[in-house]
Amino acid sequence: MTEAEFIAALRRLPLHPGALGIADDAARLGGFVVTTDTLVEGVHFLPDDPPGDVAWKVVAVNLSDLAAKGAVPEGIMLNYPLSGGAWDRAFLAGLNACLAVFDCPLLGGDTVSLPAGAPRVLTVTAFGRDAAAPARSGAQAGDHLWVTGCIGDAGAGLAVARAGEGPVALLAAYRRPRPRLAEGRVLGPIAHAMMDVSDGLLIDAWRMAVASGLAVTIALDQVPLSTAYRAYAGNDPLRAATAGDDYQLLCALPPDQRPTGVATCVGAFAEGRALALTHRGAPVAVPERLGFEHRV
Amino acid sequence: MTEAEFIAALRRLPLHPGALGIADDAARLGGFVVTTDTLVEGVHFLPDDPPGDVAWKVVAVNLSDLAAKGAVPEGIMLNYPLSGGAWDRAFLAGLNACLAVFDCPLLGGDTVSLPAGAPRVLTVTAFGRDAAAPARSGAQAGDHLWVTGCIGDAGAGLAVARAGEGPVALLAAYRRPRPRLAEGRVLGPIAHAMMDVSDGLLIDAWRMAVASGLAVTIALDQVPLSTAYRAYAGNDPLRAATAGDDYQLLCALPPDQRPTGVATCVGAFAEGRALALTHRGAPVAVPERLGFEHRV
Repeated sequence: MTEAEFIAALRRLPLHPGALGIADDAARLGGFVVTTDTLVEGVHFLPDDPPGDVAWKVVAVNLSDLAAKGAVPEGIMLNYPLSGGAWDRAFLAGLNACLAVFDCPLLGGDTVSLPAGAPRVLTVTAFGRDAAAPARSGAQAGDHLWVTGCIGDAGAGLAVARAGEGPVALLAAYRRPRPRLAEGRVLGPIAHAMMDVSDGLLIDAWRMAVASGLAVTIALDQVPLSTAYRAYAGNDPLRAATAGDDYQLLCALPPDQRPTGVATCVGAFAEGRALALTHRGAPVAVPERLGFEHRV
Repeated sequence: MTEAEFIAALRRLPLHPGALGIADDAARLGGFVVTTDTLVEGVHFLPDDPPGDVAWKVVAVNLSDLAAKGAVPEGIMLNYPLSGGAWDRAFLAGLNACLAVFDCPLLGGDTVSLPAGAPRVLTVTAFGRDAAAPARSGAQAGDHLWVTGCIGDAGAGLAVARAGEGPVALLAAYRRPRPRLAEGRVLGPIAHAMMDVSDGLLIDAWRMAVASGLAVTIALDQVPLSTAYRAYAGNDPLRAATAGDDYQLLCALPPDQRPTGVATCVGAFAEGRALALTHRGAPVAVPERLGFEHRV
């Protein structure tokens, strides 16, 4: 069965009220938001990615979900497959760095052994408090679409990692994403809808529109691109907007909210059910691939 | 690095106060206890185990940790590798049954794809409330050692699964363990120490003794064996007490607490640092293998 079919089947199981119908990106439990993400070697990270970067990433992708809830990290649980050697030590060093940088302590976890040659599968479950952000489904017609930071750096960084050479800044964006926790605290209370950009700006904006029952138009010329990205990939906002692993925040804001300096306005919501792209006001064809579908 | 070394390294990371020093079987978060366990195909379950039984087991082993805290299940998160076919559907049926039987709703989770041929890795994180039980480290000299249910059925059931024939009751004990939630609620408030028996009665009793800084003696002739076990494996309490997957509860009780009908007294704690075995009062040599060490 497909992932969508599986999730539809999960919705027919006994659900906790805090599961929010398995429709949101995080669950609610007591005063906490809870989120979990699994990374698989060869699927979500490369077998030769440095172990410390894998540690960083498995924590960061979860903290990004907390950021999208406007939450403050409370702690994480880690499910870890022991390798038995240098990989474990390097992983721990990266884990230590990430937990320190994002002020997120370890709560517990589990370690297992994998059969020889099996790809590593790592899970983190993250807990946040004081979540102030709405679901992804709350966008209203007339809202503007805003995104934090720059888009496309991580996707370019994946190309750098695969090529074995290229700008370090892009590689770092891919390997050590920085969840937008502070921005989430600012944007959460004023947003109508919020989520993180994990699979690509276009696909995630489209998901927000679908969840909200709206159409969305994205102005490609407004998509924020870094100097490093432009130098590496050229002025190619469509490539940037269909690449994954940004871990920026995407939100729907009423037009009178303009948090410049925290985010960039890249589009708008309207009545309807369409995804439209423009460049300097002119229509642009929507590409077949909007982002990384396997990570929906 | 070994698992013990890895866990020692985790203790040097930034820890949440609720992590309890990564020394207990569950963390504390707000009013909840949190525990997580990962099952690996080929390590913790057999590749030809029915998918519905795998679903049951990955939930049940976590609920057993809640039972050991005297907690009431609040909900679970599931991290699941999609197979894409009948396996998924059968898994969901078993999951539904287990959640219904133990009145434990789904909170959320994550699905991933694995590379072709990779062993399945499944994680459940479980939340419980109203936990009334002590840590495994609180046993006192003079306490008696009590265990719920019967020991060894699941180990014999594993032998049945591998042989492809044998008593269904033993197979069910291995494939669909029943976490001792009700017993945990009774024993938790009166116990000095409590934990579940996942790797074998001897090794888990020894862990409780070590955590409590005590010696423990186990009377093998008192180990409760089921009629089905005796018929299949003979009157062999040592084999039963070194087999895993029982998911019974083990607790240290003061001598004036005698919860007959809920548990069976199988030993006692004393000053010292030894594990001793007796049979009808006579000493029995301690075997080299106390249980399933890889699942410590």
